[in-house]
Amino acid sequence: MNAITKDVEMEQQREDRRVEMAQAKDKEDARERERRWQESHQPRDNLAPRWREVAGRDNWVGMLDPFDPLLRAELIRYGEFAQACYDAFDFDPYSRYCGGCKYSRRSFFQSLDMANAGYEVTRYLYATSNVKLPNFSRRSKRNNAWSDSANWIGYIAVSDDATTVLLGRRDIVVCWRGTVTQLEFIADIVNFNQPIYAEGIPTPDRSVKVAAGFVNLYTDKDTNCRFSKYSARDQLLAEVRRQVLRYAEERGEEVSISITGHSLGGALATLSAYDLAEEREVPVTVYSFAGPRLGNEPFKERFEEILGLKSLRVVNVHDAVPKVPGLIINENVPEFVRRAGAAMPWSYCHVGVKLALDHKRSPFLKDTAEASCFHNLEAYLHLLDG
Amino acid sequence: MNAITKDVEMEQQREDRRVEMAQAKDKEDARERERRWQESHQPRDNLAPRWREVAGRDNWVGMLDPFDPLLRAELIRYGEFAQACYDAFDFDPYSRYCGGCKYSRRSFFQSLDMANAGYEVTRYLYATSNVKLPNFSRRSKRNNAWSDSANWIGYIAVSDDATTVLLGRRDIVVCWRGTVTQLEFIADIVNFNQPIYAEGIPTPDRSVKVAAGFVNLYTDKDTNCRFSKYSARDQLLAEVRRQVLRYAEERGEEVSISITGHSLGGALATLSAYDLAEEREVPVTVYSFAGPRLGNEPFKERFEEILGLKSLRVVNVHDAVPKVPGLIINENVPEFVRRAGAAMPWSYCHVGVKLALDHKRSPFLKDTAEASCFHNLEAYLHLLDG
Repeated sequence: MNAITKDVEMEQQREDRRVEMAQAKDKEDARERERRWQESHQPRDNLAPRWREVAGRDNWVGMLDPFDPLLRAELIRYGEFAQACYDAFDFDPYSRYCGGCKYSRRSFFQSLDMANAGYEVTRYLYATSNVKLPNFSRRSKRNNAWSDSANWIGYIAVSDDATTVLLGRRDIVVCWRGTVTQLEFIADIVNFNQPIYAEGIPTPDRSVKVAAGFVNLYTDKDTNCRFSKYSARDQLLAEVRRQVLRYAEERGEEVSISITGHSLGGALATLSAYDLAEEREVPVTVYSFAGPRLGNEPFKERFEEILGLKSLRVVNVHDAVPKVPGLIINENVPEFVRRAGAAMPWSYCHVGVKLALDHKRSPFLKDTAEASCFHNLEAYLHLLDG
Repeated sequence: MNAITKDVEMEQQREDRRVEMAQAKDKEDARERERRWQESHQPRDNLAPRWREVAGRDNWVGMLDPFDPLLRAELIRYGEFAQACYDAFDFDPYSRYCGGCKYSRRSFFQSLDMANAGYEVTRYLYATSNVKLPNFSRRSKRNNAWSDSANWIGYIAVSDDATTVLLGRRDIVVCWRGTVTQLEFIADIVNFNQPIYAEGIPTPDRSVKVAAGFVNLYTDKDTNCRFSKYSARDQLLAEVRRQVLRYAEERGEEVSISITGHSLGGALATLSAYDLAEEREVPVTVYSFAGPRLGNEPFKERFEEILGLKSLRVVNVHDAVPKVPGLIINENVPEFVRRAGAAMPWSYCHVGVKLALDHKRSPFLKDTAEASCFHNLEAYLHLLDG
């Protein structure tokens, strides 16, 4: 072995050791991420005796600052259910099934590496894509598309027996898909509000109004389409009725309904919670992420006081979507929103309790200039995971 | 169960079956791809008695049309070795190790899911990035970068005992990393040719000239850098000498040297084959993919006739890189190349035997408008795989 070979070999052995240590570190990090990921889908051991409190019985007073670890874990757990709506959605315009769900109900959680979530998907929810919402519905570019008008919009899942023990009750979770939406378009949607009863949602209070764009998505149907011949509302009510009958009435179990969604999905969560509460007396809690305002002051009053609904809104203080449209349009709001706001009835307000996060204080999230990033659900879940 | 539930459940069961069949098909396809992928790294059973023929003993006469299946398999096998140079290279400018190899020698093939290739990496090759080649060298943007001047440029691997039996001889493979390069820049590099002896490559024929840009990459060193204090040439010759000593001289085994590379790596393969053949008498075969022309007519003569080197050039007829620079600049060549060509000594020619592929006849490759795609090594390997 000559001098060059010896010298080069020595350097390369040094480099090999360096790379192998780096690879081992990467593997260790990946294992740790996987462990935390798996853990994030499972209820904590101490949840059962405290579930009512975590579900907002006392309006989360004293649980937000300092942040209750059990509540934090539950928010992440429900947030991952909402994230699943994005991860399972077929966004590929060259797929025949663009706009649908990529997985069957049975393989849903397994395909998303969430097999241990301990819930079973019992129903998929579809809406007609005839309701034009920006950046939400997708259509296949292929001739033989699975559906001309339907889009997969969420799912209903029910806790299995083992998880029900951990949860302290049988939990029916309703998850609505959202969208990362341009503010300008959201302003368009909510520009027009309507009495909720006129949109086909029975309510005794005729002064309750909501943004028409969201309600249409919830109540519209297309009789020619096998997926959206019933409205998302009809699909939801029928399935919740069936599950409540099965568990609460037939088996006498305690049942909760947990509704979650991000962005536009947060608006649907709030709307559907209201609708379910008008119909039956099962405790309903909404966990919404970055949801916009949906209804007027009478909507808020009825939601919170008459129906006693619980809603925890998780908000990144730098995300503009939850600020639109707003009662208070001030100098902190971007110019174009102010302009949009000026043309609207200033009548929308948030419902429930707000949990404010600040990505600028997170060691995990970079403060980029990209505003849409502040609205991203995964960024929200990172913030929660702190 | 009411009518809506029954109806919706029926539709969803139908949809579940459809999705599950699609998922099963995807899994089956993935398994088949994995099977073919694993198969592509292993020599065929019938190679050993025919290896000299496949390595070009008879200049591949009668083996190209129709295409000999054994030669096809070997070209894919060597092509994957060349592809590994891209896949293992750290392109990430935010990594400290940008410009290096992501894996250690020991874990190299395993990390690339090529554990069954049956070769062991014995040496990594580095070059100084002081030689400016377009789109080839990468530097980390971080302050604490692993090296200020070196770039990983390829590797040497030797067949293990079991694979040596399948191959019919001990095979030393030399793989050079390439680049997907803009034609304009290649024209710049080769604008200036030099007698090869003046560049530090001993040769008895002083009329042999090569493109200076490629030779500099091969012969330059940086005495201040622990990775490139010896030139790539010095590293290569020392290692090949060591392996030939070990296997041919000490053990009396039959040994071959196979050199492969894509694009710029193809030029380095041709150059280093020439250099090795000037030094010792071991059969050397070059498998180059989309390589540009490198030397003048005396280079070609000495390469093919005096040194008896074997070179199979795989070329996509729609890829412009192998056409640059050219003896024949005609109307099929893009305008800017013609302009570049007009300013050059028109003295370069290809060496060896050409295997022409045509991506427009491939059922697997779309005829896109993206010219760089015709030059991509993975596209070449798909074409070979037919």
